[in-house]
Parts: sequence; structure tokens; C-alpha cells
Amino acid sequence: MLSLDQIRGLSRQTPSRIVLLVIDGLGGLPGPSGKSELETAKSPNLDGLAARGICGMVDPVGRGITPGSAPGHLGLFGYDPARHIVGRGILEALGIDFDVRAGDVAVRGNFCTVDENGIVTDRRAGRISTEENARLCEKLRSIRLDGADVLVEPVKEHRFVLVFRGEGLTGGVSDTDPQQAGLAPVPARPDTHRGQKVADLANGFVEKAAQELAGSRPANMVLLRGFSQHPELPTFQELYRLNPAAIASYPMYRGLSKLAGMKVLETGATIRDEIDTLKQHFAEHDYFFVHVKKTDSSGEDGDFDAKVSVLEELDALLPRVLELEPDVIVVSGDHSTPAVLKAHSWHPVPVVLYSKWCRPDGVKEFSERACMSGGLGRFPAMEIMPLAMANALKLAKFGA
Amino acid sequence: MLSLDQIRGLSRQTPSRIVLLVIDGLGGLPGPSGKSELETAKSPNLDGLAARGICGMVDPVGRGITPGSAPGHLGLFGYDPARHIVGRGILEALGIDFDVRAGDVAVRGNFCTVDENGIVTDRRAGRISTEENARLCEKLRSIRLDGADVLVEPVKEHRFVLVFRGEGLTGGVSDTDPQQAGLAPVPARPDTHRGQKVADLANGFVEKAAQELAGSRPANMVLLRGFSQHPELPTFQELYRLNPAAIASYPMYRGLSKLAGMKVLETGATIRDEIDTLKQHFAEHDYFFVHVKKTDSSGEDGDFDAKVSVLEELDALLPRVLELEPDVIVVSGDHSTPAVLKAHSWHPVPVVLYSKWCRPDGVKEFSERACMSGGLGRFPAMEIMPLAMANALKLAKFGA
Repeated sequence: MLSLDQIRGLSRQTPSRIVLLVIDGLGGLPGPSGKSELETAKSPNLDGLAARGICGMVDPVGRGITPGSAPGHLGLFGYDPARHIVGRGILEALGIDFDVRAGDVAVRGNFCTVDENGIVTDRRAGRISTEENARLCEKLRSIRLDGADVLVEPVKEHRFVLVFRGEGLTGGVSDTDPQQAGLAPVPARPDTHRGQKVADLANGFVEKAAQELAGSRPANMVLLRGFSQHPELPTFQELYRLNPAAIASYPMYRGLSKLAGMKVLETGATIRDEIDTLKQHFAEHDYFFVHVKKTDSSGEDGDFDAKVSVLEELDALLPRVLELEPDVIVVSGDHSTPAVLKAHSWHPVPVVLYSKWCRPDGVKEFSERACMSGGLGRFPAMEIMPLAMANALKLAKFGA
Repeated sequence: MLSLDQIRGLSRQTPSRIVLLVIDGLGGLPGPSGKSELETAKSPNLDGLAARGICGMVDPVGRGITPGSAPGHLGLFGYDPARHIVGRGILEALGIDFDVRAGDVAVRGNFCTVDENGIVTDRRAGRISTEENARLCEKLRSIRLDGADVLVEPVKEHRFVLVFRGEGLTGGVSDTDPQQAGLAPVPARPDTHRGQKVADLANGFVEKAAQELAGSRPANMVLLRGFSQHPELPTFQELYRLNPAAIASYPMYRGLSKLAGMKVLETGATIRDEIDTLKQHFAEHDYFFVHVKKTDSSGEDGDFDAKVSVLEELDALLPRVLELEPDVIVVSGDHSTPAVLKAHSWHPVPVVLYSKWCRPDGVKEFSERACMSGGLGRFPAMEIMPLAMANALKLAKFGA
């Protein structure tokens, strides 16, 4: 397999268009009927695409590895998810549409309660209201530190995001959260000497936060976790000479696509809204990432039938994507979320690719079982990107 | 997957014989009939081999990557084509049967026309005749430089090969070709300090070439491109303890096999000639690479029927190979060249392996669709070599 640097050298700008339709948590497991969610759903349009196109199974990270949303998507975007890590703090920031920038270090914060001796009595401060959280974040915003800007944003209940923005910052700093009540918060420590600056910033922030929150109850202290840095991925523009756009109704996915250099398009909450957005902007970009969330949420809820319904809803809308005649369309998922497991899982994910130049196989149905014998075989999700580029005739020959 | 060094330690010399039959550009795509070239061709002997043997699909470099001839063949010879790069200059030299040696730096040269101010007016000097080219190369051969021998060979029309042979040479030098008329030739510059010697040689050569060609019209200057070094591959003798031979009617493939340490056998222009050569020398070697070119050329011409004909011609001659009873026979291609694309492509390539010790699968036909479900699965072409060695009982057990 070629490196991203090698692929960069082969990429050509052409007018052809690629659509990547990501059905979050697509893969499933058989329910009581013996069929998976995808096998149960009436999905004539996905099946038709499978019959005309070429199918396979992708491993988002590797056999047996259950991916979070970040590695699941990074793989689909062509990055090696084992090497490019999006840390917890960055992910939390992306999840509130925070404009994370190269060089930033982001941290997940909790408001907590400490007693008069500084011992943590409640790591979540009784799950204060989101409104109270916003009020306390206002106080924290007054904190000034030498060496970096301090940015604070509320998330939900007791959770907030802290971002340090400045020169020469690196992650690799230990949590201040002692992980259980009855202990005092721990000073942040750098894993290596390069992390000293951020550890100092963190300890300075905690000290001033304690002063700011001293009078407040129950939230009178903060705990910091998941210090992590913007992963500074090479963008789609640099790597593939694409002008990419993302259509996603959930902020975290918008954030992940921004990391890859995609322009995030305004869209609505439903699949229909997202496809309308695709239609509206179809002339303006040559790559579109379209994200369907509710398959994953219903899988996590353990709601087999709801997941089937979302798949059927999507299938009914698929012709509206196909009538745009993208040169390449790829439909897959970022990971499996079987309703019977109520969680993300390690199972590989069906994929179908259609282009004028694909080599059709014998698969007639878009499902886990049918795609197992597809012509694409079983492969790492990160190879979807070069495949899509090749089918769009956007990759030059490698070597003479 | 084991490294070449690990495989080297397992290799055993035995009397068994391996034949690798490479059908250049073998893989195709469906034509108007819905069938690929290979599916269209009447090929009972290849189908019989598929039925007795084990089949699969190989990726020459990786999914989505369209290989040139060099990476396509290096993969089949067991080298990682993403790591072992054969540059443009070396390939041009191999293409004229030039005896490229370890340490050489080879360059593609163009004769061009410059005006009285040294500005390039025609990058190809009006595509001078090959005879004129040979006459001019004679002049360039008088050039002497300190630090390396200078070797010049005509190719065709305006193209020639320049080779520097000496101690301590490295590639990594920029082209002198400005890539468009209206600009002056550019001095060669090293990518790193290690390239300084070759950059100096190149600039010295260009200066003296300008003097030699001063009176000549239209070719009064040279442009140099693709400075590259002999890749110095570990040979088949070192890696596999084989005594390998190559049978190829086209010089570039003879050159590539020489890089792997193969002895190049004299042969004729037809497939029948090549198989006669195989028969004649069958007792002398334990590995044979046999190269069939015209499938690729007809694919590149977009001539679906011609590609079908070459496949049928080869199929009719296959029994002459099989009656030699090689212990292992592998039939595959270096890449796909679908007639409908008129070019090399990224599609995987069918492979069949037969030996007394293969584990036959259910595939009864040698075609893209049938091989997709073969017992070898889909795998990188570079794994063909250890597979062939194993089936020849030439690889010892790995580990205790």
C-alpha cells in the first residue's frame, strides 16, 4: 500500500464528482428473526446499487477492533486511524462545533465539588444544569494565563471544553481528575519535557478556577482530562486536490470533516434535508461526505426496528442522490452498531462502490452476508479513498 | 507478512521448477457484451488449469493504485513496489536493453532546439529521425567528465539515454527540462547534498553537449529528466537460492528481470518463440519468468477483440508449457489494461497457481469474476513469490 505522500503525487484535479454516503453504525447482527437490520430492511435501491456496482467488507481499524466515531471516520477519509489520533479533548470540542485550529490543545473539563480540605466529594458536581454550567464558564473566561489564550465553552450538565491556543503547545499531559471521589485533584504532569508548557498552563488554570469558583455551590472546582492536540491531518486539498464538502447534521461529524479540510455545508436535521443540501451544492464541489446518524443512535438504543426504519427511509431517498449522477458513489459505514449489542462493535462494515469503471461482481443485495463475497473483498476502510479517486479517474499511474 | 530477509533465511535449493507466466495487462472490464476480454476468450486450457489449481485476485500495488510496468513486475517478483522504485531514467535504459549496473545513475535525454539566446523553441527538436539521433549521440560520446564515465545511447526520434557510471553517485537531482518552450533550460540541482556530484556531472554534460551540438540544426541542445539510480534489488539468487531465467521479447521486461538477477534468454517475437525458448532451456534453470506483451498493447489500443485473440493464442499454446511439467506454474498479470479504458488500470488481476500441493478450490474458469471467489482470496501480488516457493517445497518452516 502506498503512503499518503505517494498518493499525493498521483492525484489529479478533474471535473468528476465523488459522493461518500456514510451510514453511521451501518453493520449489524442477526436479531430474533435470524436476519440483521440491513437484511431485514426493504432496501431495493441499495440492492440495485449493489447489483450494478462492486461490493465488499471494510475493517474500519482492524479485525476485532471496535472503533469510536473519530477513527471510524478517519479511516473512511483515507487516514490510518491507528496513526492519526483524535484525542478526547479535541473530540469534545468538535462535538460542540468549536472551531479547533492547528496547534490548539483541547481538554475535557468537569465541574466538580471539593470539601474544605480540597478533597473531591462529587466528580460531577451533582450534574449541574447546562444553564448553571454556562454561567460558570463565563467566570472561567476571565482567567488569563501567560503563554496561551484560554478558551472555555460549556458542553452539557457538568461538562465543558477548555482550549489552550498559542505557540509551541503539545498534548501528552496527564489528567487532573483523580478518577474517584475521596481524593484530591492531581496536578497535571507532562509525559515528556515537551509537555511542560501545557502542564504549567493547566495547573495555572486549575488554581485560578478554584479562586473563581470558591463561592459557588455545588460546583466549586474543575477536573481536567484528555489533553489532546489538533491532529493536523494533511487535508483533502493537499492530498487529493479535491474541493471537498461535508453534509452532517451532528456537530462531531462536521468537526471531523473540518479536520480533513472539508467545507461544512449548512443543513437540516433529517436525511431529506441533507440530500437537499447535496443537490443544492452539487455543482460547487467535487467530493461530498454525507453523514446519516440515526442508524447508529437506534443501534445504541438497542432498537432493532428503529434502525431498520432509518435504513428504509434512507433507501427511499437514495434515488435523489443517484439522479445527480455522481461519477463515483460509495455507501458504507464508520463501524457496526448491532442493535443486539447496543454499542459500537468490531464487525466489518458492508461497502458498495459504483462508477462507470467499477468491475461489477455477482452481489445483488446490499447486506453483511452478500457483501462478504463481493469483488472488493475485505479490506481496510482507509483504502476506500484511493479506490474512489481511481474510479473518478483522478489518480495517475504509479511508477513508469 | 515476512520481510525479504526473513524469507531469505527459509529458502532452500531443490530440483523443483517454477514457471511464472505473466500476461501483461491481463485484467479487463466488460465490453458491450457484458463480458471482459478474458471472459470472452475461448480459453479451455486456462480454464482447465483454474479447475485443477487454486485461484485468486492480486493487487499489484494496492486498491485503487494503477501500476506502471515496473511496479507491476516488481510485485510479481516479490518486491514491495511501494518501497523499491525504478525511476524514469533507469526504465528508459532498460527499455533499450542497456546493461544498467548497480551504482549507475540513468537519465532520459531529449534533443531540443534553442534560439540564439538559449531559449528552448522546440523541446523535441521537431522529432528528429532516429538516424539523426544516432549521429548526434556519437558526438555526445566524445564528452569526458571528471568523476564518472559518461555513456550515451540513442532511443528513438529525439530521445536518448545518458548514464553516469562511477563511485558515490546518487539520484535525487532535478530535471534540466523547463517543461515548456519559451524558457531556458534549468541547471540541475540536487534534492539533498548527496546529489551534488551528479548535479555537477549533469551541468558539465549539458555545457559540453551545447558546444558539441552548436552547429547542428534543429537539434542544438539537450534536456535531461528523470535522474534515477539502479534500485539495487536483492537478487533471486540471494533471496531464494534460485537460478532464474527470463523469457521476454520486449527489452523493458528483460531489463526488469535483470534487476532481479535473472538470466535473460535469447528468444523471438511471438508467444510460440518464447515457449520454444522455455522448452529448450527448461533443464538449465529452476525458475522461469515468461512474459506475454501483446495483451497489454491491444488493451492500450482499445482493441477488445485483439486482446481476446492474444488470450486465445496463448491458451492454445499453454499445453506446450504444461507438458514440461513444471512443479509450480503461476499465471497472472502485472496489472489490468481494460480495452474500454485504453490504459493500465487499478483493477485487481486474476491469478491461478497449480502444483501437486496446491489446495484446489471451486473455481472452474480463469476469469475476473470467477477468480474473485477463489481460494487464494485477494492479496498483494508480492505474496505470489513466497506462495510459489512454498508450492515448490523450497521454503522451510518459519520458527520452531
